[in-house]
Amino acid sequence: MSEIPMTIPDLHAAYARGVTPGEVIRQVYARLAQVDDPGIFLSMPTEDAARAEAEALGPFDPARPLWGIPFAVKDNIDVAGHPTTAACPAFAYTLTEDAFVVARLRAAGAIFVGKTNLDQFATGLVGVRTPYGAPRNAIDPLIVPGGSSAGSAVAVGHGIVPLALGTDTAGSGRVPAALNNIVGLKPTLGALSATGVVPACRSIETISVFAMTVRDAYAAYRVCSAFDPADAFARDIPAPDLAAPAPAPVIGIPGAGSIRFFGDDVQAEAFAAAVDLLRGQGAVVREVDFTPLYAVADMLYDGAWVAERYTVIEDLLKTDPEAILPVTRQIIGKAESLSAADAFRGIYRLKELARAAAPLLADLDMLCVPTIPRFYSVADLEADPITPNSNLGTYTNFVNLLDMCALAVPTPARGDGRPGSVTLLARAGQDAALAALALTLEAAGDRRLGATGWPHDAGPPLPPAPADRLTLAVCG
Amino acid sequence: MSEIPMTIPDLHAAYARGVTPGEVIRQVYARLAQVDDPGIFLSMPTEDAARAEAEALGPFDPARPLWGIPFAVKDNIDVAGHPTTAACPAFAYTLTEDAFVVARLRAAGAIFVGKTNLDQFATGLVGVRTPYGAPRNAIDPLIVPGGSSAGSAVAVGHGIVPLALGTDTAGSGRVPAALNNIVGLKPTLGALSATGVVPACRSIETISVFAMTVRDAYAAYRVCSAFDPADAFARDIPAPDLAAPAPAPVIGIPGAGSIRFFGDDVQAEAFAAAVDLLRGQGAVVREVDFTPLYAVADMLYDGAWVAERYTVIEDLLKTDPEAILPVTRQIIGKAESLSAADAFRGIYRLKELARAAAPLLADLDMLCVPTIPRFYSVADLEADPITPNSNLGTYTNFVNLLDMCALAVPTPARGDGRPGSVTLLARAGQDAALAALALTLEAAGDRRLGATGWPHDAGPPLPPAPADRLTLAVCG
Repeated sequence: MSEIPMTIPDLHAAYARGVTPGEVIRQVYARLAQVDDPGIFLSMPTEDAARAEAEALGPFDPARPLWGIPFAVKDNIDVAGHPTTAACPAFAYTLTEDAFVVARLRAAGAIFVGKTNLDQFATGLVGVRTPYGAPRNAIDPLIVPGGSSAGSAVAVGHGIVPLALGTDTAGSGRVPAALNNIVGLKPTLGALSATGVVPACRSIETISVFAMTVRDAYAAYRVCSAFDPADAFARDIPAPDLAAPAPAPVIGIPGAGSIRFFGDDVQAEAFAAAVDLLRGQGAVVREVDFTPLYAVADMLYDGAWVAERYTVIEDLLKTDPEAILPVTRQIIGKAESLSAADAFRGIYRLKELARAAAPLLADLDMLCVPTIPRFYSVADLEADPITPNSNLGTYTNFVNLLDMCALAVPTPARGDGRPGSVTLLARAGQDAALAALALTLEAAGDRRLGATGWPHDAGPPLPPAPADRLTLAVCG
Repeated sequence: MSEIPMTIPDLHAAYARGVTPGEVIRQVYARLAQVDDPGIFLSMPTEDAARAEAEALGPFDPARPLWGIPFAVKDNIDVAGHPTTAACPAFAYTLTEDAFVVARLRAAGAIFVGKTNLDQFATGLVGVRTPYGAPRNAIDPLIVPGGSSAGSAVAVGHGIVPLALGTDTAGSGRVPAALNNIVGLKPTLGALSATGVVPACRSIETISVFAMTVRDAYAAYRVCSAFDPADAFARDIPAPDLAAPAPAPVIGIPGAGSIRFFGDDVQAEAFAAAVDLLRGQGAVVREVDFTPLYAVADMLYDGAWVAERYTVIEDLLKTDPEAILPVTRQIIGKAESLSAADAFRGIYRLKELARAAAPLLADLDMLCVPTIPRFYSVADLEADPITPNSNLGTYTNFVNLLDMCALAVPTPARGDGRPGSVTLLARAGQDAALAALALTLEAAGDRRLGATGWPHDAGPPLPPAPADRLTLAVCG
């Protein structure tokens, strides 16, 4: 069997011509062996067990949207019978129930193949803050894999699996997508159930989806999306069919005075080229002063929200502090000096900053930002474990605090061959609109999927939006 | 001049027949002198100054909804040139600008006549926690005036003014309305700007309106309501014209297993009679288990929200603790032992409790509760300053935590002559629907306004709801 590209349409085409899901599982394990990176997965079913699950699907049923689609799960999300470690061995526990979203994927025909490595307790954007040994970036082992959903992004980047779940508070579902040349869909807060997730910041966090293509990411998002009354933070967010984007969307980009690349001129050029693509597709591009958004971003680690992380590890910090990585302890330990009054002052400050940012966003349909401002090497992180991590969050940290949804999409490779990526951002509930516009972006230029040689296939054009489509606004 | 009943229609009728606003101001000060309660107002303009402001209105303009209407302001809301004390002399400051809502009232033609006494820092439901000497209940000086908006409610109850502003976190805009036989309108959070308010719990608090009648309270609410971008917690909430309520509303009441009167059988009878009135008007009444709502209520003082109060007085507590009443210090001081992690745990717990309560509320249009479960005397409070206060909040404490709006409306007097009062509750944004239904309740029976002998005049019937009226849902 020749290797099948890890996209849903390619796999479904293969199944339609008689390939079995067991054969696809064999490819998954073979490709993992070929990649030979023990840092990607923290636990897996045996190949035989995964093949047995695959063969149990019975005959190909194209009506099930994820029939026979292998998927990986970040190891802060529960999968029945597999330990959930959050990359902290002392924290590990094993349940007999899947997380809500994992159960949704399986019910749609997807096949679980492993739990992936992460920055411990999902605290980091680099992917190297793990006691299990970091995964290597799929594109270039010298650069960081990105985190905190490192293993999930790398697994997709290598074409081991077409789908993987991450989580995203500060950018953990977007930064590693940019670093591995794949798609990272960060849904509206509350759209995907958090039941069965070890939270980082429970009030401003979501499960996210990595895939090779926007279409696949959105297909998985739709399957995962269902209101879960057991998750107190769940919201009933629409996940309609994709339709062609409205013509001439008004898109804000960081203005010259506030755009930040930390010296990476090639990234600046790549972003300018991506914006030109948007313009070429009819978008009305407006430069926006990002200063108020950076002020929001500063709340994430300097403000009270670090106390949310603390609630998760408080017991462990008290009984066995050495079980937690020093850098993680240092970041989360800051919460020990914060009072409840500080927390409310932080909430007030965020409300005020969000109000200050509102006029800036009011007349825009979306924002478009570089997913990451620049690249950092593993060596950079060894020299300074904090600053590169902070800088990587430049365009991601403010997003959940402002209740926006996001989609990180690959753009043509940079001049130096590194992957290009921009992120589209919109207000809560606009996930489908982001995906529709992202489709046109990812179709531009001659692109390969992840770190593979597989070409990108744009697929059929989107149908026009139905005439009765209302603009859905979700307030928060 | 014979005494004019303190309602907007009565005053506007008087103005139409040639009475001047200066004469009305004279009545305000005369009635205050007659009532002879120095605990009601903490500061006032001189009568001459108020009359000068009144006469400056020029000729009667019935198009201005509050033309010539005297109003009082709780002394935690700024009025230009008058000290804002929050009932704490050491905290006092004087600004040259009115609070946003005060400015709206004045712009609509209303005349400011004084700042009213309150439970210090709006912490209390009794009205006796003030170093200035408590106002006396307008109906019966042996019972507590109710708080925290004590002076505002007593001033309206005596017919000194037809309108007064309060604030409401835990019930401060409703409990004193019940105790003084008047209307207390507690708007949807964010509907009225908090600019110029000394907050108690900024995230779950609102300015409220006291009036003799529902129509007057709603008229003032409409004038006050305008989106204020300077208030980070402001929301754009509709304040439409009142229209006849939909027929057969489904109204939940506390079920037999969870209704609480703390031994006041007369209150139980009065509430049953009010519910019968609703039934008689076509309402479908359903008994609801209030246990989940009481669990929400417990969060207000036992949970982290007391830290919001602490943010307001932290400096004073540190520099001059004796400036704060011991009972207030005891309540708010609890925040000193609460961490930021505790605050977020409280937020999680509230979300979970709100989710648990959701099914119970899902099929209801409104709730109807006794505004207070029983009466307490001033002597009761001297014996125990905490328990009676807590019990008074039985049906009010959970409301803002669940983002509901409320309207406390007088019902026919109880068997023992004390005032009857129920509160209608609905989800955010339904303020007009509450007012429309409350109108039909207050029209039942032979009722006098406040502590006066003025009869209640139901006024003209409401027009039918316009055909194009959409149900407006505000999510939060």
